[in-house]
Amino acid sequence: MTSEFDLIRRFFSPPTRHTLLAGGDDAALVSVAPGQALAVSTDMLVVGRHFLADADPGGVGHKSLAVNLSDMAAMGALPRWATLSLALPDADERWVGAFMSGFLDLAAQHDVDLIGGDTTRGPLTICVQIMGEIAVGAALRRDSAGPGDDLWVSGTVGDAALALAARRREIALSPAQRTCADARLDRPAPRVALGRALVGKARACIDVSDGLVADVGHIAERSGVRAVIDWSRVPLSTMASALRDDPVMRRAALSGGDDYELAFTAPPDARGAILAAGERTGVAVTRIGQVEAGAGVQVQDGGGRAVEMVGAGFDHFG
Amino acid sequence: MTSEFDLIRRFFSPPTRHTLLAGGDDAALVSVAPGQALAVSTDMLVVGRHFLADADPGGVGHKSLAVNLSDMAAMGALPRWATLSLALPDADERWVGAFMSGFLDLAAQHDVDLIGGDTTRGPLTICVQIMGEIAVGAALRRDSAGPGDDLWVSGTVGDAALALAARRREIALSPAQRTCADARLDRPAPRVALGRALVGKARACIDVSDGLVADVGHIAERSGVRAVIDWSRVPLSTMASALRDDPVMRRAALSGGDDYELAFTAPPDARGAILAAGERTGVAVTRIGQVEAGAGVQVQDGGGRAVEMVGAGFDHFG
Repeated sequence: MTSEFDLIRRFFSPPTRHTLLAGGDDAALVSVAPGQALAVSTDMLVVGRHFLADADPGGVGHKSLAVNLSDMAAMGALPRWATLSLALPDADERWVGAFMSGFLDLAAQHDVDLIGGDTTRGPLTICVQIMGEIAVGAALRRDSAGPGDDLWVSGTVGDAALALAARRREIALSPAQRTCADARLDRPAPRVALGRALVGKARACIDVSDGLVADVGHIAERSGVRAVIDWSRVPLSTMASALRDDPVMRRAALSGGDDYELAFTAPPDARGAILAAGERTGVAVTRIGQVEAGAGVQVQDGGGRAVEMVGAGFDHFG
Repeated sequence: MTSEFDLIRRFFSPPTRHTLLAGGDDAALVSVAPGQALAVSTDMLVVGRHFLADADPGGVGHKSLAVNLSDMAAMGALPRWATLSLALPDADERWVGAFMSGFLDLAAQHDVDLIGGDTTRGPLTICVQIMGEIAVGAALRRDSAGPGDDLWVSGTVGDAALALAARRREIALSPAQRTCADARLDRPAPRVALGRALVGKARACIDVSDGLVADVGHIAERSGVRAVIDWSRVPLSTMASALRDDPVMRRAALSGGDDYELAFTAPPDARGAILAAGERTGVAVTRIGQVEAGAGVQVQDGGGRAVEMVGAGFDHFG
């Protein structure tokens, strides 16, 4: 039987690059650079709720870090360190090995040190905490949108929710479409470089995890403004564009979560800088509406008519 | 039905005292003081493994933070911030409210800000991450014990394991003894002030969570030394002293975990300073042995004869 200490030695003690002390002690030690604030976020993933028991463990490892990196992206922070706590039903080395490959590959891509964690026996549950640096006062918060701002979104939205809809047989996709959509759901690419590039240019920012309308709604609520989204401008993938008039597709794009794109606002005079930031980081950025005085989120079609909303954002206890 | 957002608003958004931004955004923001390293630790608690389903939720809240505070104590760090992730089978407000009272009461005692977290539905699982400050280079690590050091332990050991033994009917306790032992198991008092006072005086330090011999063994292994424990000097509570010759009691004191005392080493010329540190922080400190060249841990009786060890430290997959 593999012991807890074997597991830790074999899988949870990768080398680190910018850490004073990692693993093997009561706590890890890191240094935050002068003038930098520490940005801290955490997400918990539970089998059967965030991923299926038979899901590819490498994908689960990737996603459990990706959703946390996305929170750093949404703050404009540079992700630096992560901790990982795992409850495992048994010490299944193959599962843990594949999970850690997915986790550590993505960590290496983003130069994030895994500095600590905990392992226990229990129903499969993953808890990741991410820590990053952002210059004091420079974070992209949710509460700083202002009337007159443009509303932007990165990449394309809806593919992840489309994959879920296909799994639930609510929509039929071709094998090629299914592959694209599944990749968005299972291996999201957190927009860390874009988030960094938006610092000093965007005003408010959030990552799209609950759904575009719900997450833009969080900005609107926290900033005390109203957001208007033009549905005809909402960027869809090539695959999804063919389905734009399907109500399932519209719901996926507006209310589906799990895209991990960035939704953000910026004053109109920053348009050139925003487009350049997208260009530089290889992520399309699209103006999808504007911020006004008022409250709430309205979705309009190209002609300014209200689009009926179907389903709100995700609530774990709703 | 209580929504996730209601839960967050009602229970998970306490005021903070030394935090730039807490809750409600993609990440929390904190500032680490110049010259201070950030100490980071995390623990995951699972129902049925670390606590019973019908355990007092206030005690579970207390303990889930206490075990993390104990890690800060063992580094000599000043705990400052915590995040809390919870998987809950349902949105049971009474349970969550009592849990958070226990958690936040202890956080307030230690002036720790709860700065973020995550809530999801799932088998009851608690993941706490603690962050604290310690002057760069000053942390009480496990790898710095040296031959000639005294070996010390704080408070008394074994009561928590005795409570477990009583629950398993391996030992009979009077109601008064049971109350004392249960309090040690359910509401451990992390030795944060003592840990802080030991900075610059102790050399290696660890908190006793796996069991005294196992945890001293971690120091021995990481420091490349041998530790000798004199069983006759191991401090027991008044209640436990009456049972010193019972093999269940000896096993509880030497191999039981969950005491959350500090085991540490220090050079003999620091004895006065160590005793003064204990005095000042109101925690007894007792010399229980010494550090030698070699490897491993040996337990001896008062006459220098080896004491037979029963059971090693705790391994979640052993």
